[in-house]
Amino acid sequence: MFDLSEFFREISELVTAELDRLIPVNGPGPDNLRDAMRWSLFGGGKHFRPALVFAAGRTFGAADEQLLRTAAAVEMLHTYSLIHDDLPSMDDDDLRRGRATCHIKFGESTAILAGDALQALAFQSIVDDKNLESEVRIELAAGMAKAAAKMVRGQQLDLESEGKELDLLSVENIHANKTGALIAFSANAGALIAGARDSERVAIDEYATGLGLLFQITDDLLDVTQPTEALGKTAGKDKQVGKGTYPSVLGIDQTREKIKEVHDQTIGVLEGLPLDTSSLRAISDFLVTRGH
Amino acid sequence: MFDLSEFFREISELVTAELDRLIPVNGPGPDNLRDAMRWSLFGGGKHFRPALVFAAGRTFGAADEQLLRTAAAVEMLHTYSLIHDDLPSMDDDDLRRGRATCHIKFGESTAILAGDALQALAFQSIVDDKNLESEVRIELAAGMAKAAAKMVRGQQLDLESEGKELDLLSVENIHANKTGALIAFSANAGALIAGARDSERVAIDEYATGLGLLFQITDDLLDVTQPTEALGKTAGKDKQVGKGTYPSVLGIDQTREKIKEVHDQTIGVLEGLPLDTSSLRAISDFLVTRGH
Repeated sequence: MFDLSEFFREISELVTAELDRLIPVNGPGPDNLRDAMRWSLFGGGKHFRPALVFAAGRTFGAADEQLLRTAAAVEMLHTYSLIHDDLPSMDDDDLRRGRATCHIKFGESTAILAGDALQALAFQSIVDDKNLESEVRIELAAGMAKAAAKMVRGQQLDLESEGKELDLLSVENIHANKTGALIAFSANAGALIAGARDSERVAIDEYATGLGLLFQITDDLLDVTQPTEALGKTAGKDKQVGKGTYPSVLGIDQTREKIKEVHDQTIGVLEGLPLDTSSLRAISDFLVTRGH
Repeated sequence: MFDLSEFFREISELVTAELDRLIPVNGPGPDNLRDAMRWSLFGGGKHFRPALVFAAGRTFGAADEQLLRTAAAVEMLHTYSLIHDDLPSMDDDDLRRGRATCHIKFGESTAILAGDALQALAFQSIVDDKNLESEVRIELAAGMAKAAAKMVRGQQLDLESEGKELDLLSVENIHANKTGALIAFSANAGALIAGARDSERVAIDEYATGLGLLFQITDDLLDVTQPTEALGKTAGKDKQVGKGTYPSVLGIDQTREKIKEVHDQTIGVLEGLPLDTSSLRAISDFLVTRGH
């Protein structure tokens, strides 16, 4: 039986140490800018995306040192997107992971710039990675750029949809861009670094796309079923601002059905691979569990 | 005699066409986001940084098709930085190149996201460039990431310095990061793409660093000597918000002396190169002329 909590703990430790090397406490200033980046980077995130890089990478035989920089990069990119999404002109959130959001703590302009710098440093982390061939770094950076652009498109769609009646297809399109693209990239990156075969890369992409969807549906469900203290961010926020979510479109029971269906799909893909995919399976199982 | 206006016109045409291919009018939406990017990209900029990529690249023998994507990338990165710098929480500017700034025209959240997307697409433009070897693309992307991070640091320093009494060293440090890093990268990128020798790359870096400084000093001077209509942006803005500038620290006469000194340095570097450097010389001359 794969020990997922131990795995998450291990990856968090590896990635936190790498991020601390890349953006050190005594690194280049100005102090406020560096502190703002570190405030959000070391704010108690689960490191879900880095864990996916490692789970997929190890599954196909990559060495940890080949995965570390890319894992740090996806966490930086994710963190930048959270900082910007929380801004007053966007989702206007004061609370993130149980702490003040970056702009509440450091002011709006510093928060915008901290996000901007994290995006640049995410690309730098990959292109400077001496443990990977140039061709691999190029393909990773190109994939991350595409995911980053999709993430922004999804956030724009999400903001524009506030207060509008959405159908399921529109909700899925928003989330495939906003959340799904970077989650899919994280798993795909692991397989790419490991030099997985084309057929394996098709499979992992299908798994990762399903996983991104599963992530979002369960996230939507948590927003309506959990209190603020458990979430570490403001609960009921989606409904309050009139966001289209799976529960708002499908209702809670059908959302649970949908979760089961997407979970089955991801497991089905993994069962087609002649490898030990227990870590990837455990990650999909974990998302279902957290939705309850 | 090198015809600089014709050169600027030619490069503007090339780069505008390439940007229009990379972010097409009917490209991926949402419409507002794409329109916001295009509003700022096609807002009548001089394409100074792309021109530097071409001037340095051609000087050392690169083909135009090897330079085009990188030229487009530096323009995207520069445009993103202008959009974010103009935001209400930053410099709060309504006017840019004689037109409404991005957030005035499209709203604040769309402007932030348009800048975010442009940064991602700038990296994509370079790493996807099929006209360059992987190693060259890696080195370009790494250089651009470093310049992008410095640009953000410079903007943070600039904002933090408002209303403070600055010495010359602090003013120079702000501008070396905020403006100088991307200008230097643009010229260096041209030389790198052309496969210039190490000694030549040292020379071009020295030239470009001087040019970045010259750009900023003359920009500061224009802010106090030119009216809003001539600038296309709000004149006297630096003084109004209490920014440290060359004229505010040195006075106008000594600022003019400094311009002459830095210009002489850049020309001296070029004279040491056994090549036709007339385009690079003309660019340095142009900056001096615009300061008058």
